[in-house]
Amino acid sequence: MNHRIYCKAMDASSMLSFSPKCWLRCVLFVCFGLIAVSGMGQQALGMRPRVKSPVLNADGTVTFNFFDPTAQQVSVTGDFGEVRGQTLSMTKQENGVWSATTKVLNPELYSYSFSVDGQRVIDPSNSYVNRDISTLSNIFIVTKEKGDKGHLYQVNDVPHGTLSRVWYDSPTLGQQRRMTVYLPAAYDGKKRFPVMYLLHGHGGDETAWGDLGRASQIMDNLIAEGKCVPMIVVMPNGNPTCNAAPGWWHEGMYTPDGNAFNQRGAKATMEESFMDIVNFVDARYKTVRKRSARAVTGLSMGGGHTFGISYLYPEVFDYYGLQSAAARVKRNDAQFDAQMARLFNSKPKLYWIGIGKEDFLMQMNNDLRSYLDSHNYPYEYYENDGGHIWRNWRIYLAIFAQRIFKD
Amino acid sequence: MNHRIYCKAMDASSMLSFSPKCWLRCVLFVCFGLIAVSGMGQQALGMRPRVKSPVLNADGTVTFNFFDPTAQQVSVTGDFGEVRGQTLSMTKQENGVWSATTKVLNPELYSYSFSVDGQRVIDPSNSYVNRDISTLSNIFIVTKEKGDKGHLYQVNDVPHGTLSRVWYDSPTLGQQRRMTVYLPAAYDGKKRFPVMYLLHGHGGDETAWGDLGRASQIMDNLIAEGKCVPMIVVMPNGNPTCNAAPGWWHEGMYTPDGNAFNQRGAKATMEESFMDIVNFVDARYKTVRKRSARAVTGLSMGGGHTFGISYLYPEVFDYYGLQSAAARVKRNDAQFDAQMARLFNSKPKLYWIGIGKEDFLMQMNNDLRSYLDSHNYPYEYYENDGGHIWRNWRIYLAIFAQRIFKD
Repeated sequence: MNHRIYCKAMDASSMLSFSPKCWLRCVLFVCFGLIAVSGMGQQALGMRPRVKSPVLNADGTVTFNFFDPTAQQVSVTGDFGEVRGQTLSMTKQENGVWSATTKVLNPELYSYSFSVDGQRVIDPSNSYVNRDISTLSNIFIVTKEKGDKGHLYQVNDVPHGTLSRVWYDSPTLGQQRRMTVYLPAAYDGKKRFPVMYLLHGHGGDETAWGDLGRASQIMDNLIAEGKCVPMIVVMPNGNPTCNAAPGWWHEGMYTPDGNAFNQRGAKATMEESFMDIVNFVDARYKTVRKRSARAVTGLSMGGGHTFGISYLYPEVFDYYGLQSAAARVKRNDAQFDAQMARLFNSKPKLYWIGIGKEDFLMQMNNDLRSYLDSHNYPYEYYENDGGHIWRNWRIYLAIFAQRIFKD
Repeated sequence: MNHRIYCKAMDASSMLSFSPKCWLRCVLFVCFGLIAVSGMGQQALGMRPRVKSPVLNADGTVTFNFFDPTAQQVSVTGDFGEVRGQTLSMTKQENGVWSATTKVLNPELYSYSFSVDGQRVIDPSNSYVNRDISTLSNIFIVTKEKGDKGHLYQVNDVPHGTLSRVWYDSPTLGQQRRMTVYLPAAYDGKKRFPVMYLLHGHGGDETAWGDLGRASQIMDNLIAEGKCVPMIVVMPNGNPTCNAAPGWWHEGMYTPDGNAFNQRGAKATMEESFMDIVNFVDARYKTVRKRSARAVTGLSMGGGHTFGISYLYPEVFDYYGLQSAAARVKRNDAQFDAQMARLFNSKPKLYWIGIGKEDFLMQMNNDLRSYLDSHNYPYEYYENDGGHIWRNWRIYLAIFAQRIFKD
């Protein structure tokens, strides 16, 4: 729109003959001109435009934006596509902002990062990040309506539980160790609650289920909707050689890698030391101290821990959830067979196995199910799409949490 | 070193006449050659070398490393120099890694980020970051010996307290709101402890003192060394229009800026609603419920809150700490004068004011001190170098925490 057409040419002699309407137009013209000039000035001076990213568009797509006028190639990689790590090329606009827009996205928590001339960069316009081992990625949530996955993972206007980083003594491991504890909003120090023990995988720690798994949001929302019994959720650190998450124990701010999580030199395994955790939780919190008020579930390595715990302490828990579990059946092992028989003779209320069709541990889980089938041990099996990913573990947590402590 | 000079030229006929020592040299030569070739291969294929950053060198300097073979200009900006945001140019090595080394650094917690061809980038080799409003920066800690600042801010092998994100009801603000609560390691649900209320500044929230302020590490370490009485530390959210930190309430994952923290539309101010916090803490936790077991301190805006709280509720607290406080004296205001007189007539055990020489609020603090002096109100004054920065607030917390609940 050219504002000059609204106003006669300005010269000193004609100034006083302007109508009020024309004055207004002149003022508008000058203002628009100043804005345009200052905008050009910013660009000329290399000033940074305000960048919002990601933008959740009204049509259900999501646009990523990244300002870098000198970059040659920028792309965004994330879990928003058909394939696990889909990459979208970003296109540079005149103001130096690179952009790309996804297809319409289903309700979900998504993660992504940028690649700028080959270097992985997190989005400087998005301060919401998750750490997985030593890598930070940005996250965002898409939701359409109450009850969808995005709604389940986001913070809604519902009563919120308490999330605590708690240190406890493990006599078996000879350490002070850290766990995360979720107390439901109704926890008041008087009423007693059942406890779900929720275990992370290899590379994880006591922060994993809260951050990557959105455990406190899922529990808050399921409890608020009455889909789930109010319960305490205990998320311990499952690495016997690490007292706590990286940076939170006296090893300092090391860069975690696979080696940080090996068990060499540990005084005991996670499974062997597990009753230290249960004993601490029962002593510190208002728990219902009986089998029917205890559940244990975990993903991958934590699914393996759950498996071991199930046959080591069959009298302690009534609900078991094996999520994409690294759960290896011991063949031709009379002691193992006896332990499993004792477990199933104790008639646990739920033995639940969940895994994605593309999970690399599918064969191990098939072997476990064959073993259970051949012994007529009852269990529930849930299979869905996808592989060994947090997207599935959030689903499994939500399903399992709704199945426990109700009978 | 050229390994070839150690070994005779190899040909099939002379092979069997090699001495064992020469065999060894040949094997070494081949191995070194393979390493060199594989190294070149990685570069040729654009493979990423393993980068460690930052590296805390034995001589007390710190080296930053960043891999980007195609970048034109890389630098690091942080608080490791004489000036607040010192920038060091980084130099590219043959393997595509850019590096810069600081001078010898004093014990301290430092923060930094990279600039890559003009774009601010956080260090992908360092997963330890702090968020300030909406900006992430990397951190690292330098320590030389027990008792220095780095040692005070790092996690040591001492008993650790519990850090909790707790929701409480504020009837005055008509909201469910979030606070961070530190319980000392000795907290067992039986023994009662005094309480320090620790308030953040403008742009902060209930996570600020824990993350940027290292409050739990400082308290763990001071208590372990017997320098500080075991106490509960309560870090509420001081923004009356925000229920919680960004991303942790139902406003969703917005990008926080200055507008997020204004008080427009709030039902009451932080100071007016403050007794909701005290009442909740006294009801929920094993506190010593008397004036001599309550302290309140805060930085900047939180110092202003502390000031207001001091003259609104003089019977509730015995220790006050104003850190770089936005504390404005009301001139020619009889009600204010009466409130201040009542405060000092109640003889608080400590009225402490701390500020850095370069703080932009120095004049406001000078005015406050003049007012106190002119009324013969006793206070303690602590002045150090530097300005309105977290480095100072960590120092003030450590000083104040050692001064309270001891008499």
